[in-house]
Amino acid sequence: MRNSTKPRKVVDITRPVLAKNEEFAAANRGLFRDKAMLVLNVIGSPGSGKTTLLEAMARHLHDAMVVIEGDVQTRRDAERIEQAGCRAYQIETHGACHLDAKAVAHALEQLDLDRGECEVLVIENVGNLICPSSFDLGEHLKIGLLSVPEGDDKVLKYPSLFSRISDLVVNKIDLLPHLTFDVERVIAECRSLNGDVRVFKTSGKTGEGVDNFCRFLLDERAKILVARASRA
Amino acid sequence: MRNSTKPRKVVDITRPVLAKNEEFAAANRGLFRDKAMLVLNVIGSPGSGKTTLLEAMARHLHDAMVVIEGDVQTRRDAERIEQAGCRAYQIETHGACHLDAKAVAHALEQLDLDRGECEVLVIENVGNLICPSSFDLGEHLKIGLLSVPEGDDKVLKYPSLFSRISDLVVNKIDLLPHLTFDVERVIAECRSLNGDVRVFKTSGKTGEGVDNFCRFLLDERAKILVARASRA
Repeated sequence: MRNSTKPRKVVDITRPVLAKNEEFAAANRGLFRDKAMLVLNVIGSPGSGKTTLLEAMARHLHDAMVVIEGDVQTRRDAERIEQAGCRAYQIETHGACHLDAKAVAHALEQLDLDRGECEVLVIENVGNLICPSSFDLGEHLKIGLLSVPEGDDKVLKYPSLFSRISDLVVNKIDLLPHLTFDVERVIAECRSLNGDVRVFKTSGKTGEGVDNFCRFLLDERAKILVARASRA
Repeated sequence: MRNSTKPRKVVDITRPVLAKNEEFAAANRGLFRDKAMLVLNVIGSPGSGKTTLLEAMARHLHDAMVVIEGDVQTRRDAERIEQAGCRAYQIETHGACHLDAKAVAHALEQLDLDRGECEVLVIENVGNLICPSSFDLGEHLKIGLLSVPEGDDKVLKYPSLFSRISDLVVNKIDLLPHLTFDVERVIAECRSLNGDVRVFKTSGKTGEGVDNFCRFLLDERAKILVARASRA
């Protein structure tokens, strides 16, 4: 069986799947431009603190932030975000290991974005460092979130993600005193793949660095408004 | 585009992929039986401490343990295991989000298992709680490793894994004093999916609980020897 020389018909399913995704991503991008929303695609491991960071961001951005939560199963994360004061829509993928642009398009229809202004839309992807990295959702910022307890060797292990991100967020920095984690190594390895990456250090739990990250997001959103005004 | 009613030909690729995997898994299982090896498939998030736990296990099992390391990229983990005194073979998946039984079969050929006895073979899967859960590698024990910093809400979020495991290992218990993590909740939620699951608590860093886990593995291996003797 293992040494069979019989020629096989090989069907590459990756390209058509990604091409179809790109159609939906382009439509999402058009909607985001029309609404002058800044959109983040947040990718990190299970338990890297994505939802806790969003709860901390809600204390700065209030209802200017809207969240799409991606999980394999459960509605817990959307409920947490709603309790923090922001509108949220939960996508349950029921087994799928990443969000795609079509699922996000469906979520956008459900969110009723004309009800109140959405300045910053955060899409929290399924907890996974591998599969979500290939799927464009139409976002402006692809955020790679790496938490201190995961260890400082992860960037080169998951290059598909860390070479594509616009921003690296090192999260759970409150745990630095208890763990061996070389932040400078992480930044240097990420820059070796990805020279332009911006870096933020945060603790969703204590709030450290979250104000700075939110200020950056509002500045990015202001640039979108300026660009729109210059087109008008 | 989104409301197209044109019928599409849908090709389900999941079933043939898994059927092909099952052929290789069965062959692996036959080899494991011939060699009377106990085989573990260890599945956990990136940074959940899989490799550090294996290093701690090496201090108990010495060269009776052989390791197959799965990573998207880098050979770092196999090097760590070799430094801990065990034979190791690194599979780099180059983008793939899980190990399959064929890749393990290839690794087994490279490992030269007749050189010294291998009592316990540990296959450390790619860091991912989703995709590896569907792929049988031919193992005896499917280990779900969940680390304390990931949070106590992960079992119901990743039910495909936690409903299929034989053993739950709660790792990084040295961090319990610094974090909010309800071990009993995790165990109860896992048992709600999976009534027969065994539970171990470990710290790869301090070694706590690792002796107990290794004793369990050697007992399981002894059962394999007894079963073989009774067949002879």
